[in-house]
Amino acid sequence: MESPIQVYLQRIHDELSGLKDGTADSILSSLSGADPDSFGICLATADGHIYEAGDTRQEFTIQSISKPFTYGLALADLGLETVDEKIDVEPSGEAYNEISLAEGSGRPANAMINAGAITSASLVKGRGGQTRFQRIHKTFSAFAGRELDFDDRVFANELKHGHRNRALAHLLRSFDIIEGDPELALEDHFRACAVKVNCRDLALMATALANNGCNPISGEQVLDIHSVERVLSVMTTCGMYDDTGSWISTVGMPAKSGVSGGVLAVLPGQIGLAVFSPPLDGHGTSVRGTAAARRISQDMELHFVRAARTGRSAIHSSYDISAAPSAVRRNDEAAEFLRKHGHRARVTELNGDLLFAGTESMVRELTTLDKDVELVILDVRRVDEAAGVALRLLSEVRAGFAREGRELALIDTHGTLTRAFEEADRKVPSFATRTAAVEWTENQLISKYGDELSLPGKVAATDSPALSPLSDEDANAVQAWMEPKNYDDGDLIRRRNQPFGGIYFIVSGRVSTSVPGPDGRRMTLTTLSAGMTFGELALGSGNRQETSIRAEGPVELMLLSPGSLYDLQAEDPRLAAELWKALTRDAYVREDQYLRETAVRFRD
Amino acid sequence: MESPIQVYLQRIHDELSGLKDGTADSILSSLSGADPDSFGICLATADGHIYEAGDTRQEFTIQSISKPFTYGLALADLGLETVDEKIDVEPSGEAYNEISLAEGSGRPANAMINAGAITSASLVKGRGGQTRFQRIHKTFSAFAGRELDFDDRVFANELKHGHRNRALAHLLRSFDIIEGDPELALEDHFRACAVKVNCRDLALMATALANNGCNPISGEQVLDIHSVERVLSVMTTCGMYDDTGSWISTVGMPAKSGVSGGVLAVLPGQIGLAVFSPPLDGHGTSVRGTAAARRISQDMELHFVRAARTGRSAIHSSYDISAAPSAVRRNDEAAEFLRKHGHRARVTELNGDLLFAGTESMVRELTTLDKDVELVILDVRRVDEAAGVALRLLSEVRAGFAREGRELALIDTHGTLTRAFEEADRKVPSFATRTAAVEWTENQLISKYGDELSLPGKVAATDSPALSPLSDEDANAVQAWMEPKNYDDGDLIRRRNQPFGGIYFIVSGRVSTSVPGPDGRRMTLTTLSAGMTFGELALGSGNRQETSIRAEGPVELMLLSPGSLYDLQAEDPRLAAELWKALTRDAYVREDQYLRETAVRFRD
Repeated sequence: MESPIQVYLQRIHDELSGLKDGTADSILSSLSGADPDSFGICLATADGHIYEAGDTRQEFTIQSISKPFTYGLALADLGLETVDEKIDVEPSGEAYNEISLAEGSGRPANAMINAGAITSASLVKGRGGQTRFQRIHKTFSAFAGRELDFDDRVFANELKHGHRNRALAHLLRSFDIIEGDPELALEDHFRACAVKVNCRDLALMATALANNGCNPISGEQVLDIHSVERVLSVMTTCGMYDDTGSWISTVGMPAKSGVSGGVLAVLPGQIGLAVFSPPLDGHGTSVRGTAAARRISQDMELHFVRAARTGRSAIHSSYDISAAPSAVRRNDEAAEFLRKHGHRARVTELNGDLLFAGTESMVRELTTLDKDVELVILDVRRVDEAAGVALRLLSEVRAGFAREGRELALIDTHGTLTRAFEEADRKVPSFATRTAAVEWTENQLISKYGDELSLPGKVAATDSPALSPLSDEDANAVQAWMEPKNYDDGDLIRRRNQPFGGIYFIVSGRVSTSVPGPDGRRMTLTTLSAGMTFGELALGSGNRQETSIRAEGPVELMLLSPGSLYDLQAEDPRLAAELWKALTRDAYVREDQYLRETAVRFRD
Repeated sequence: MESPIQVYLQRIHDELSGLKDGTADSILSSLSGADPDSFGICLATADGHIYEAGDTRQEFTIQSISKPFTYGLALADLGLETVDEKIDVEPSGEAYNEISLAEGSGRPANAMINAGAITSASLVKGRGGQTRFQRIHKTFSAFAGRELDFDDRVFANELKHGHRNRALAHLLRSFDIIEGDPELALEDHFRACAVKVNCRDLALMATALANNGCNPISGEQVLDIHSVERVLSVMTTCGMYDDTGSWISTVGMPAKSGVSGGVLAVLPGQIGLAVFSPPLDGHGTSVRGTAAARRISQDMELHFVRAARTGRSAIHSSYDISAAPSAVRRNDEAAEFLRKHGHRARVTELNGDLLFAGTESMVRELTTLDKDVELVILDVRRVDEAAGVALRLLSEVRAGFAREGRELALIDTHGTLTRAFEEADRKVPSFATRTAAVEWTENQLISKYGDELSLPGKVAATDSPALSPLSDEDANAVQAWMEPKNYDDGDLIRRRNQPFGGIYFIVSGRVSTSVPGPDGRRMTLTTLSAGMTFGELALGSGNRQETSIRAEGPVELMLLSPGSLYDLQAEDPRLAAELWKALTRDAYVREDQYLRETAVRFRD
């Protein structure tokens, strides 16, 4: 189906086509051949998707919309401080062609008025075999994501008739704001204004600003983030000349207009918007450009105040591990122990972006935990982006934890937060799955507090929880059908896709279960220890082993093989019934654990 | 442990205490008794958490920081248009006490300069038995969340010596910008400037602006969102007088300063920041205020351009239902059917906020689906906030779906998106759990495409998948131990917490399983239909029923009761072994399904 955003844009275009106010710059129109009735709207998302309506491929000269981009290049070349000595960042409160030079210093009020723009051009230098203008032109083209054209006639006309700008250039030279030949800087400023773009180009240039200086389609990082921040700040306070306040009040996006009828607006992080329609209002801005930007901002809630309502809390849920234990089957004693000590370990699940507000909520949660909490698992699998401040503060929290004898662990499949700890002297435990993290945490608790309990060194198959419903006599009888198996560290006990191979009882040692991860590498799901069983799950998955099982250190097992199970049933059907009944119960104990975990995770 | 944010704030405070530049307003200091060496920093989050360092309880007069709040009250009283006729929204490029009235009309350039502020005061009227100033005072107090004091001496002094402001008031009267007695408006402006606040009050006033006009601690909605949007827009372009551009470039937050040494800054949606330190720079702004705001903005990444990097895509994952079927046990034929037709239904899981960018990504996903996709389940349980634009566009997508014969369903426990469809003529299917939504979807597919298959009307217990490993003879023998049970629509078959009551085979009709939800209301987990079984899960949960089970319409069941199970085993142990073996396998088939679902959901 057609996108309702596309349909909406077309409707706005149709409605505003009826707006006939304003007058196009007649000289520009006649020189460039751009039809004054042309009208295009283009919206580009920060990931490069484009919506367009009307004449979005009609070319026109960029004019004053060149100013933020030339300014950006000067900032990137020289740094903010050096440029600031030459160009201030204050709104002049005046029209675009006012002189607006500071008394005494002659410093232009900002880079969006002509005096500032000529100065920006003067600050860019030829470099690497490229002339100044080649570099400016290359920058504009990189913003637009295509090689842009140039209008010789518009340039020649401006060179001949741009008396006021020529006066400004010489005035700037008299104050030493421009160093070197002011005519050359002026020429390159005129050239920059004569670069040809269409509405789609402008939208992409705008969205590259929205996207931290990176053109989302080409992927090229055209400008660094600091320069982009500055450019957008100046567009916010000075972009629309003496109409900037009204524009920010009604549209709420940093913007720039040009006398040829183009307007671009930027919602940082979200979109770039461009409109082309030559008839201008008294401020020198496209009438339909302003009208379209106001409508679209209002209807789509793009005003920067409103669009900034990011999620305030990054915390999706937080619960202690006894509410959602690992899927590991513990013996009754260990399970009871964990119910008692589970409040010492918490899982905190984060969501969305860790910008300041989200980070603050996380830090607040972590620094106000009950004194009892010693282990915290941060589940960051659903964190989309972590700002530098998040990494820094989290690292500080962890240092504080260390001082208090607390431990932090991550569930961080993508390594989103692992960067925070790269330079720490001790690696942060990081797990790919919740199950693995919680199980590790449980084992930490057991080894710390479960002295008398400890992880059982050896559990006879007859004492395994799976067989607990059987009488001692029956359990011994079942064990008589088993055969002992021993493995060394790293041995593969069961391979994924093998057929059902019987039921394995772990007498001592540990095994891990794994599947291939998304990147093909082995992903450990869980670790099983003495008293637990494995192999039965293959009964439910078409008699095929779904996971691979490996020895973690030396392992003693007892195996009830498929052949023994068959023979046992033939020889002692009553015992077989008791055994299967116990196994059914055991299966549902596991299922119950899954359901509990699911219930907590999705309790929203 | 102490919060690293608190530690950070204290460190900044300590460092900047060494900054001794600037001069405090000597008259104000001597009148109010505020120590010029006082220095406080306070940061309040949009949810009302407060970090503070230094002298945050020292009181001082609010002075010009009153201006945005009086302006806000005038906007709320009269609406934007009426106020705009009296006060423009353009930066004047001049100092706070410049005249800056428009030629001809006499309209003040903006509400942040004195002329605009006196006009704002004149626009507020007494109402409901309260004088104008009482209303202003009440508004300020509501922003701060406590009854604010008033400084008589500062007021009296201003009344006596405020000649320039008196001149402005009369000038405004001469242009009819102020209607009525200019002296009265002037007096109330002076009174507003003499309201006493501390640094903490200012931070809360700022964060109430950040929080859409609502004080996060008291919960009072002090100002409507439209007025807040306007106030913050004008603060952005005009809040810091002739230093606004530099402030926005370096701090990047709408702000306001006062001559007594207070500064507040607002990051919409995230925080309010306030600093108090009397020594002022040449712009009339606290020297340490500017220094602290710059440092904190930079270190915490609070510049509005940077802080706006919201997650661009709301889509966490998207997969067709055959990748993660419902936990419902189907017969083999139905399972095969769903593997074949599952690509017709998709689950799309959303995450974070649905502002424009997130909404756009959702709309793009939904409008570019393969032609084959007929059913879409939107899982919105992790959507924190949905803007109006999200609700509107989603409603349009659904209308488009309807035209194309497609169906949309929601997993929306909180009803976050349900509002979007309140006025639609047909209710959108909405489910509390993924399992319930997917199962509904599967049934839709089966009833649409599974003609020859169809949902089995009646399945004998002997044909149930659970008993499929048994020979016909054994299955019939097991059935002989069952007793028929019939229920009517709504009947409670099993109650939560009842002990294990045997295994129920559904012969015809449907039952639903439910648990109490977080709000105490019944939350349906899943629906079971003919051929399926229930009751076994109680074996795994300490012989207790975890869910309640109800008839959905008339239901025929066959029950293998605990007593029959016991007798069967005593009388025919071989048959009992076969039965339990089949039930073990069946339990692991279920478990395998859970694991598969878990693997897809957490595949990140």
